[in-house]
Amino acid sequence: MTEKYEIIKSALLGVLDKKKYAGLREILLVMNPSDIAALFEDLDEPRMPLLFRLLPKELAAETFVEMEPDAQEVLIRSFSDSELKEVVDELYVDDAADLVEEMPANVVKRILQQADPEMRSSINQILRYPENSAGSIMTTEYVTLRPNMTVGEAILRIRRQGVDKETIYTCYVTQDRTLIGLVTVKDLLLAEDDDILIKDIMLTNLISVTTVTDQEDVARMFSKYNFLALPVVDGENRIVGIVTFDDAMDVMEEEATEDMELISAIVPSEKSYTKSTVLDLFRSRIPWLMLLMVSATFTGLIITAFEDALAAQVALTAFIPMLMDTGGNSGSQSSVTLIRALSLDEVRLSDIGHVIWKELRTALLCGISLAAVCFAKIWLIDRLLMGNESITPMVDAVVCLTLVVTVICAKLVGCLLPMAAKALKLDPAVMAGPFISTIVDAISLVVYFLFAQSLLGV
Amino acid sequence: MTEKYEIIKSALLGVLDKKKYAGLREILLVMNPSDIAALFEDLDEPRMPLLFRLLPKELAAETFVEMEPDAQEVLIRSFSDSELKEVVDELYVDDAADLVEEMPANVVKRILQQADPEMRSSINQILRYPENSAGSIMTTEYVTLRPNMTVGEAILRIRRQGVDKETIYTCYVTQDRTLIGLVTVKDLLLAEDDDILIKDIMLTNLISVTTVTDQEDVARMFSKYNFLALPVVDGENRIVGIVTFDDAMDVMEEEATEDMELISAIVPSEKSYTKSTVLDLFRSRIPWLMLLMVSATFTGLIITAFEDALAAQVALTAFIPMLMDTGGNSGSQSSVTLIRALSLDEVRLSDIGHVIWKELRTALLCGISLAAVCFAKIWLIDRLLMGNESITPMVDAVVCLTLVVTVICAKLVGCLLPMAAKALKLDPAVMAGPFISTIVDAISLVVYFLFAQSLLGV
Repeated sequence: MTEKYEIIKSALLGVLDKKKYAGLREILLVMNPSDIAALFEDLDEPRMPLLFRLLPKELAAETFVEMEPDAQEVLIRSFSDSELKEVVDELYVDDAADLVEEMPANVVKRILQQADPEMRSSINQILRYPENSAGSIMTTEYVTLRPNMTVGEAILRIRRQGVDKETIYTCYVTQDRTLIGLVTVKDLLLAEDDDILIKDIMLTNLISVTTVTDQEDVARMFSKYNFLALPVVDGENRIVGIVTFDDAMDVMEEEATEDMELISAIVPSEKSYTKSTVLDLFRSRIPWLMLLMVSATFTGLIITAFEDALAAQVALTAFIPMLMDTGGNSGSQSSVTLIRALSLDEVRLSDIGHVIWKELRTALLCGISLAAVCFAKIWLIDRLLMGNESITPMVDAVVCLTLVVTVICAKLVGCLLPMAAKALKLDPAVMAGPFISTIVDAISLVVYFLFAQSLLGV
Repeated sequence: MTEKYEIIKSALLGVLDKKKYAGLREILLVMNPSDIAALFEDLDEPRMPLLFRLLPKELAAETFVEMEPDAQEVLIRSFSDSELKEVVDELYVDDAADLVEEMPANVVKRILQQADPEMRSSINQILRYPENSAGSIMTTEYVTLRPNMTVGEAILRIRRQGVDKETIYTCYVTQDRTLIGLVTVKDLLLAEDDDILIKDIMLTNLISVTTVTDQEDVARMFSKYNFLALPVVDGENRIVGIVTFDDAMDVMEEEATEDMELISAIVPSEKSYTKSTVLDLFRSRIPWLMLLMVSATFTGLIITAFEDALAAQVALTAFIPMLMDTGGNSGSQSSVTLIRALSLDEVRLSDIGHVIWKELRTALLCGISLAAVCFAKIWLIDRLLMGNESITPMVDAVVCLTLVVTVICAKLVGCLLPMAAKALKLDPAVMAGPFISTIVDAISLVVYFLFAQSLLGV
């Protein structure tokens, strides 16, 4: 796939430079808009408008939508007003709204000037909704039917209106703009008789979202109910737009990326890795690194407080990294499991009792198995193989007891913090590995030194 | 949403126990299959068949598909043969194949006995494909058209055949079973004339996958191209099935969960958290914990080797956790960023030069900023505020120099290992935080002690 694309790309660019435009156009016509858009990413600025002008109107708009904002901006700046109008007219309203959001102010002004008044008002409507809400990702182009239409009339209406709609497969039945049902094209085509009334075949147990529903909840409903489209209603149950499955897929991908970034102590950004500059990466990575580094002051203070114990039993120091890493890993296992379960709605806040009980027993099993293997390993490798005389059975016991307690604390902290975040209406993903490691580090060191003091008398 | 569901649930169960079946049926009829399935999860075994028998045939099958395997098994065991046949007949082939895969052998035997011969052979065909391949998630029910049909004939064919097909919206044009084009219902409905031939309006620049394409690649094509369905072909470009967008969404969700599990040192499992027993959780968590614990032996050995240095400068020990955590966090930031970029196809193996150069500069920026803040923090808090006399400017310098080198090493290891895994055709997500922490721990300790030896002369 990828290699094939590279070959096609260099062939196409060769043809472009030789000005064999007719042949090039033939090739572009059989390509997919996404692939043509990818091609644009690799063009230098002067060649972009050249290639773009070869595309027929509809394909041009479809390709334009798939391009990255910076390529779009280069193109728009090269467009004449009438060229810009042609592209904008072909865009679906939600894509046009996305474009307006991404472009700098002077480009936005030109776009809105070229859009027809209806499109302009729809764009403005979508832009008024909060970021990441259903309203901000919906499109206002959908097919509405009336309950008293016949199936035949409905099909006729779709044939007349459908060309400008993002999807025609789900049609919404309204009465005085209130959403009262839905009918799919499948229902219409498979209806036994063209004279059946829409109200007799429409589905009335509707699932809808409001304009302010979080886009993550919208995406979850798509994956739960397998919808092609989901209606967006206002406070009075009047339909104002629809979200289509492809936008829901984009949201799912975005939200999964965001969760993974939070889990690994990165401030989420919407830029892809390739588009991010070094400064972008720095800005998204330094805040958590700085915070976590400064909060490690506590672990340092704990070690300083027990300096005498360490001086008396230098062997103890060697096990600090192992204890900290195992605690950190145990905690991040629990936290990520819970973060994902909360985000997929598998676990709810009311399940907290079950969760604690399950994690506690898992922690006990893990802790005891780890401690048993660790005890043997320390004795066999560190004492017998490496001949480290300062490791007594008691030192070994202190390490392994600490291990059990650390794993239990880590798993409890790991499951409780994401649930606490959820209860506080924060994103549970913030309470992931790095944050939990810092807490568990401190706990495990205190436990370690307390065991050392009481069992080794240091 | 959730609270509403709880209220409905207890109301429904109350009605069920009072045997008001007619009223209950009315309520179920307006509910969504996914929501009815969720209701079954909360029923005890004797009540399940009772409620299920209230559902009309088609709704019953749709609900059945949405249920968890254990509830499905309870139901099947309670079914008479004719009841089982009714449900199986209503299932789409891909759902039936999923069911057969999940059930124990004796239940599978009964299901296959009740399936009609055509369905049985389709199920067996799907089950022959490797797990996680396009073949294993496809359905064999789709609409095919001939190139010489007219639009009118095509619509008639869809109306006759459509009822049993998972999607009718994308129809595939074949000649001698070879896939030569596709036509959407939108194209058909919007065609100007019913006498236009399919071959004149069909799309011929097809994107298809083969039966053995990895399901993750299939899902990525859906999110890239916004398809409703994707044809699956065999080696001779003959269509053998289609994958629909809802299955692609499930795969996206599954693969994101799997990546998050791998990132946090969990062996992925297909069971949800709620369905996992303590033993399941133990089994998926202990392997990596054990491996990482044992590999921490190296960090222990490094500390033991430099025991004398630590004994001479006990203050050095206090900074080990901070250095290790910062290294681990820096490494996991880079690795998770790369893992996600590789999995979304934003970064390719050939980009390795750019990636290293970008990470190196980011690491330098992060390392120097962290070191500057750390230097001041150690001096102000540890030395002046806490009055720790053993912290000299030289000790502070050793810690901060180590920090810079550690962050650089961590970011390089963090970006190189996922790319190495990709080159070796492994899942890059295995090379995430926990694994990288262990390596970076060892590097940072060695660097720390080498700086200490040369600058502090210990």
